[in-house]
Amino acid sequence: MNDVLIPFDELVSKLRQVLLKFGFEENRANQCATLFAKADRDGVRSHGVNRFPLFLDFIEKGYIKPKNVPTLLSEIVLFERWDGNLGPGNLNAEFAMDRAISLSREFGIGCVALAQTNHWMRGGNFGWQAVEAGCIGICFTNTKPNMPTWGGSEPILGNNPLVIGIPRKESPVVLDIAMSQFAYGQMSLYAQKGQDLPFEGGFDLNGKLTKDPKVILENHLALPMGLWKGAGLSLVLDMLATILSGGNSTHEVDHNGDEFGLSQVFLCFDPFKLVLMDWMEEKTDRILDNLKNSAVFEGEAVRFPGEKVLETRTQNLNNGIPVAESTWSKILKHLEE
Amino acid sequence: MNDVLIPFDELVSKLRQVLLKFGFEENRANQCATLFAKADRDGVRSHGVNRFPLFLDFIEKGYIKPKNVPTLLSEIVLFERWDGNLGPGNLNAEFAMDRAISLSREFGIGCVALAQTNHWMRGGNFGWQAVEAGCIGICFTNTKPNMPTWGGSEPILGNNPLVIGIPRKESPVVLDIAMSQFAYGQMSLYAQKGQDLPFEGGFDLNGKLTKDPKVILENHLALPMGLWKGAGLSLVLDMLATILSGGNSTHEVDHNGDEFGLSQVFLCFDPFKLVLMDWMEEKTDRILDNLKNSAVFEGEAVRFPGEKVLETRTQNLNNGIPVAESTWSKILKHLEE
Repeated sequence: MNDVLIPFDELVSKLRQVLLKFGFEENRANQCATLFAKADRDGVRSHGVNRFPLFLDFIEKGYIKPKNVPTLLSEIVLFERWDGNLGPGNLNAEFAMDRAISLSREFGIGCVALAQTNHWMRGGNFGWQAVEAGCIGICFTNTKPNMPTWGGSEPILGNNPLVIGIPRKESPVVLDIAMSQFAYGQMSLYAQKGQDLPFEGGFDLNGKLTKDPKVILENHLALPMGLWKGAGLSLVLDMLATILSGGNSTHEVDHNGDEFGLSQVFLCFDPFKLVLMDWMEEKTDRILDNLKNSAVFEGEAVRFPGEKVLETRTQNLNNGIPVAESTWSKILKHLEE
Repeated sequence: MNDVLIPFDELVSKLRQVLLKFGFEENRANQCATLFAKADRDGVRSHGVNRFPLFLDFIEKGYIKPKNVPTLLSEIVLFERWDGNLGPGNLNAEFAMDRAISLSREFGIGCVALAQTNHWMRGGNFGWQAVEAGCIGICFTNTKPNMPTWGGSEPILGNNPLVIGIPRKESPVVLDIAMSQFAYGQMSLYAQKGQDLPFEGGFDLNGKLTKDPKVILENHLALPMGLWKGAGLSLVLDMLATILSGGNSTHEVDHNGDEFGLSQVFLCFDPFKLVLMDWMEEKTDRILDNLKNSAVFEGEAVRFPGEKVLETRTQNLNNGIPVAESTWSKILKHLEE
């Protein structure tokens, strides 16, 4: 698994060219390519370019419809429901967070629920989108079933990622967590290396917790983060996304293993409109100072969510963005045809 | 640790009489006593009557001010900030959720942030309050520092409970989870019995995960649920509560081990106003049916959050509510003086 280092602009440009071949309009091709490239730029390689081939495959299968844009279903004061019309998930999500930001500018808080959308790829992008607009952003999505509930022996819950972004001049805080303890992609990497996971990450067929990634992957029994607690939180996030959007729930978005037609929620708080600016920055800094100055175990370091992103971003913008050679050549092939 | 069985009305009545002796006004004594009794009625014994003696102690120390009611700090459309004025935490929280419900009736969504309040005791009460009003309710609170962050060797994060309630005719879904994998109270019970925890619940002094409750209790190193994920979520909940309320953050509410002056957030969605009623019930039922009909490991059962509450409630209302004899006699002593 060798990497090539691609300059950010070139990465965006190549992805855009491919997307144009797949029926995207110029502006949207650029926007979509940028969202993919941002994930890798920020070090979130699991949800960036490496998913691009599958994204193209889903377009070919008709699951993702490049030209489709969201249409408004209903609006009540600060709450809007939109139909994603199975458009590209990252474009739909960016649109929805943008609407939530706009609503929060007017009402202090904005909420957008999105039905019939697709995988948003890196959820953190939309947390960053909110904080770059100076807003507190919260968003979550359901997924296809990929982990059991507590006590259960078959995957029925989604890992339903949750993103919470808090703006800050220096380095914003952006939490981006799926409800499974480990991502399947991560576990595959351990399995390929023949290594155990560092912590228990799923169940064997007897319902016992295990660190063996192969066993977990075979059975599709990833561990909910926090055991019964994450299982409960995952269920409730799916219910909220489904109820607020009127869209599909986790058990309805699994089409023979393929995932489309998701439900998502975007919530935004504008600190200016809510008159929180007098204390927001100072309080935020003090909380993070307290964290960064706390005692650590030998050889450990403490970080806040998102702390490493800016560092990785700078490094990748300077040196080029690492992309798996095999993935990159697969993508470039589309430009030869 | 023998229990006595007390009828619900008697439980409320005795607690009310004690509260009257501690400076509560008639109505508020009744309301506060009811909130304590509801926790035990619903089987949440860790956050009910067993905390009553400490609650009285905090009144005597002046941390909790029985007569103080919340005062409005600011209001912007659907968002209100209130100062809890160090009044009783459960009364303040009930008031705040009630305001959030009212705001959601008008705007579809309502949000109330509460500064300078006190421990809300059983957070689930306020989730039930929302669902009994037909609303989706979300609330969270910060706490004093009681667990380390990921990599850290001293408690600097709160376990910051999060409650999410989703209304339903039959049996509502009410998630009530603290960000620590196990509560300190639970771990004490295991320690008293000389038993290990069923799952890893904290760290030893070398930073290794352990199931030994004594080691965890000595070091105050409870495990964040989901390891680094729950640590991140806990931090972010504290930040949200602090920023939105303008109140204290976790590191500021610890007064030599005593906890007061907390920050909380109450968020409410009115499904009627938001026009979600066409699908809400059916979608919710289908999600829960799917969960309840899923395959389980031998000897296991799957439950949704809050499922057991109504069963326990019925049982306790019929048979009397179990209260530890020692706690009960301690409480009754206040009525002899």
